[in-house]
Amino acid sequence: MDIPQESGLPLPDYAAATERLTQQLAFIREIDKVKSIFRKTYLVDGTRLENDAEHSWHLAVMAILLAEYALPHTDIIKTLKMVLVHDLVEIDAGDVFLYDTKGTVQKAAKEILAAERIFGILPKDQAIEFRGLWEEFEAKETNEAKFGAALDRLQPLLHNFYTRGMTWREFEVSVDMVIPRNEHMGEGAPALWEYAQQFIKESVAKGYLRATK
Amino acid sequence: MDIPQESGLPLPDYAAATERLTQQLAFIREIDKVKSIFRKTYLVDGTRLENDAEHSWHLAVMAILLAEYALPHTDIIKTLKMVLVHDLVEIDAGDVFLYDTKGTVQKAAKEILAAERIFGILPKDQAIEFRGLWEEFEAKETNEAKFGAALDRLQPLLHNFYTRGMTWREFEVSVDMVIPRNEHMGEGAPALWEYAQQFIKESVAKGYLRATK
Repeated sequence: MDIPQESGLPLPDYAAATERLTQQLAFIREIDKVKSIFRKTYLVDGTRLENDAEHSWHLAVMAILLAEYALPHTDIIKTLKMVLVHDLVEIDAGDVFLYDTKGTVQKAAKEILAAERIFGILPKDQAIEFRGLWEEFEAKETNEAKFGAALDRLQPLLHNFYTRGMTWREFEVSVDMVIPRNEHMGEGAPALWEYAQQFIKESVAKGYLRATK
Repeated sequence: MDIPQESGLPLPDYAAATERLTQQLAFIREIDKVKSIFRKTYLVDGTRLENDAEHSWHLAVMAILLAEYALPHTDIIKTLKMVLVHDLVEIDAGDVFLYDTKGTVQKAAKEILAAERIFGILPKDQAIEFRGLWEEFEAKETNEAKFGAALDRLQPLLHNFYTRGMTWREFEVSVDMVIPRNEHMGEGAPALWEYAQQFIKESVAKGYLRATK
């Protein structure tokens, strides 16, 4: 069986398809690539790193299940849409580790170009909507974005705890790095940050996470 | 670095956590296993099989993007929730290939037990809601379930086309198997089924899909 070309075959533009559907399906094909963008987080069973598609799915389920911990008047559907697409820019820009401060500086510019190209595949109205959702998520100013960002922090913290600090230990991460990079969770989901602080403390006590650098 | 136990460590029941949050997080941990349930569908680049978490993420994005092709008065948010959790039962019951008729017969009973156990991890109100969503999806009777089912068929058909029929060729699938197993797409999303029939025909012409058994 031969392996197809990297990006797959384009779909023919059948008479039955409008130009709009063709654009939508081109986007659906393009975003398959996010399944090959691997993060620094291990699966709960520790067998391998997680990819962006799996991570985004996990956050989407969490958004629904943990909606009661968002700030009052948070539109959970908007958060749900945000978390589903928040990592698509990494198809072009790659995943930058939360504690890689040098990588984080260069990240923003690369991601803006990526958003331009990737959301630009969609029909114009949808391109504007999704680009807007991604920008809102990145800005962390609205309740919806703050809640999404809280989930985006909680999930890898949980995976680190469940795997006895696999990522933390691999990258020699210490608690004085974890607190400042995660405390914004408290803005979007105060009760979840309260809980997370408890198991971060527990992680130090158990030796999953270093006390200092 | 040592590998943690199969299902990960349980989270301690801190004072800050209600019993409810502990149950919700236990579910969030449990469903990580769906990232290790592999389907018969290849990624668009043909490099490996796709897993259930990635597939569910892809369907969720499709539900939002292709909402305009659902029947009138379809509650897309309900479809979105359904597709996010529709494959969780496979954690216990495994993935059964669409064209494996023997496996399909035994599948239903296994999946009911799986739903009982897995959704049962949640707080009671959420267990009832999610179990209900899964049952509704399986029954394919409401507009929401029909649309979700249409997306669940469209995505692997697209992947098969994009990979020049990798799965179809591997399992010697022919067009007279594909049409009856996929034509219910027409009930939930007529325009998408119209389009799919075009590229199924094209797949036969190009030799990605056998004309007959």
